[in-house]
Amino acid sequence: MQFAIPSLDSILDPALQNKINAKTKPLGALGQLEQLALQVGRIQQTLTPKFSQPHLLVFAGDHGAAKAGVSAYPQDVTWQMVENFLAGGAAINVFARINGLELKIIDAGVAHDFGQRDGLIDASIARGTRNYLEEPAMSAGECAAALAKGAELARTLADAGCNVLGFGEMGIGNTASASLVTHALTGTPLVDCIGRGTGLDDAGLARKRELLGQAVKRAALPANAEALNVLTEFGGFEIVMMAGAMLGAAERGMTLLIDGFIVTAALLAASRIEPAIRDYCIFCHRSAEPGHLALLHVLNANPLVDLGLRLGEGTGAALAWPLLRAAVAFLNEMASFEAAGVSEKI
Amino acid sequence: MQFAIPSLDSILDPALQNKINAKTKPLGALGQLEQLALQVGRIQQTLTPKFSQPHLLVFAGDHGAAKAGVSAYPQDVTWQMVENFLAGGAAINVFARINGLELKIIDAGVAHDFGQRDGLIDASIARGTRNYLEEPAMSAGECAAALAKGAELARTLADAGCNVLGFGEMGIGNTASASLVTHALTGTPLVDCIGRGTGLDDAGLARKRELLGQAVKRAALPANAEALNVLTEFGGFEIVMMAGAMLGAAERGMTLLIDGFIVTAALLAASRIEPAIRDYCIFCHRSAEPGHLALLHVLNANPLVDLGLRLGEGTGAALAWPLLRAAVAFLNEMASFEAAGVSEKI
Repeated sequence: MQFAIPSLDSILDPALQNKINAKTKPLGALGQLEQLALQVGRIQQTLTPKFSQPHLLVFAGDHGAAKAGVSAYPQDVTWQMVENFLAGGAAINVFARINGLELKIIDAGVAHDFGQRDGLIDASIARGTRNYLEEPAMSAGECAAALAKGAELARTLADAGCNVLGFGEMGIGNTASASLVTHALTGTPLVDCIGRGTGLDDAGLARKRELLGQAVKRAALPANAEALNVLTEFGGFEIVMMAGAMLGAAERGMTLLIDGFIVTAALLAASRIEPAIRDYCIFCHRSAEPGHLALLHVLNANPLVDLGLRLGEGTGAALAWPLLRAAVAFLNEMASFEAAGVSEKI
Repeated sequence: MQFAIPSLDSILDPALQNKINAKTKPLGALGQLEQLALQVGRIQQTLTPKFSQPHLLVFAGDHGAAKAGVSAYPQDVTWQMVENFLAGGAAINVFARINGLELKIIDAGVAHDFGQRDGLIDASIARGTRNYLEEPAMSAGECAAALAKGAELARTLADAGCNVLGFGEMGIGNTASASLVTHALTGTPLVDCIGRGTGLDDAGLARKRELLGQAVKRAALPANAEALNVLTEFGGFEIVMMAGAMLGAAERGMTLLIDGFIVTAALLAASRIEPAIRDYCIFCHRSAEPGHLALLHVLNANPLVDLGLRLGEGTGAALAWPLLRAAVAFLNEMASFEAAGVSEKI
């Protein structure tokens, strides 16, 4: 699968920076918001960027390894939470609603038969992945299909006029999967990639470390394994499909809102496939999961908020979205020193 | 001037915590937002808190010492920026507008004749303070009048149904004033309370340190000076009036959105007058001004965002406000495990 993601042109940067500097505020006084405004101007290649039809996509999938005990919750919680999303009762429903993001729920591979349901996009590759403790989580064909499906979803939204996309996920066991992907793609020691997920106690954490160590041994990937191989071995369908959607979205020049640990793991895999994707990403929040640190370091990212969140679903992206909207609004709507008749620095 | 601010009753805490824990998310997974939800429930003494008529007040005032060179900008910028606020072109106009806060601009003591103006509340105590390098910035009577005026403003808003109030300020030279207040009230070494404000260069910073050292020597306050004495010596009218508005707002059970360095200095002074005010405060952002650190430490506060902002005007409060709205929304709108039929932790 090929993605043509152009590196961002910096030709407008001086004009954007001048416009930011001319606003009625001390130089640099809006801190990270100024960098955001510059980045979005660069992504959209205009001095007057504009967001249209912002969406947040939640990809759901199940993990064969979940039954081995890598999570504090039973696997059924994946489909039960999808039902909760459809009923509007989850955190991401609330945050997307109050912050003006349209929410789409995608069945990327949940171990459940939902039938035809309003509000659920059926993109299921299989009823959950296989158990990576025993065999690769998916076949190369399934991995390619998930990636293609994700890209197709993003393109459909782009065709409909959407130019900013947030990413979220649901899948019992998927912090374990993200830990394995992080370890394999960054070389960070496995133990530093593993956290308590939804809330493991000490014994549970020890068991998770033990099991993931076995998975690494079983897969026996080379040090510089290809992203697609890593995803095939350890990925969840929701992680692979997200990576595909990110690639498809960047190809169409959209701005990408990157959530926490699992979403960032998907992005790292996507960036190994097409490195130029990095420039299209806004890193929304710093997760409490330790593996997120390793990913942010490798991606040279400094997220917007650090609120001790560890929920997933795209909640960090939905909560940070008003900051991005504010960055674009100040660029477009604030007066300049000249227009407002305000004196400049002495 | 007396303020009757009740300490918050913690009687509802267990019920609030149970409600938070029953939501369809891992225990504690919404991090700081969960603490916010609990705090607002406690402030409003209900399991279903609600914000009504959120306002942001920007207090403007001039400083006699500004002409001595404690700021990178000329004093005229204070009134020019007030004009910019009235015309809707400043950062705080944009952020308040997109985040649904009603903005009020208050002339607490600008060195300018605005006449009668739509959208400007004339509460001017005098046309700027006196120069604290030579004499106290204001008289005890002026200080009391500014405090009372602020409290009256907050009460009027409370009477009209507003129950959440953000604070912001404008005043060339007011980081210098806040540095002096911080030093006098916390005992932090003066040099650690002084920053570059709107953007002083190294020489300007050295001069600011030198001048503020002279002001401290001139005032010769005792180590445990009363807050009102400190405000009289060094305060701006906008700082004192803000402190009064905070006290009046807390007395009426409102939630207070605390912005950056200058607003937090006003709050510290208010908290020395009535310590129970602390419980009503949401600390919105961590300023890039070094003195803010000392204030946050003394107030045991951990702000919501850290974006390198150093603009003032209440911009940090306006940008963090959607997070507070999100905290209350999840408490009221998210489903519980039971209601959603989602399995709990194994």
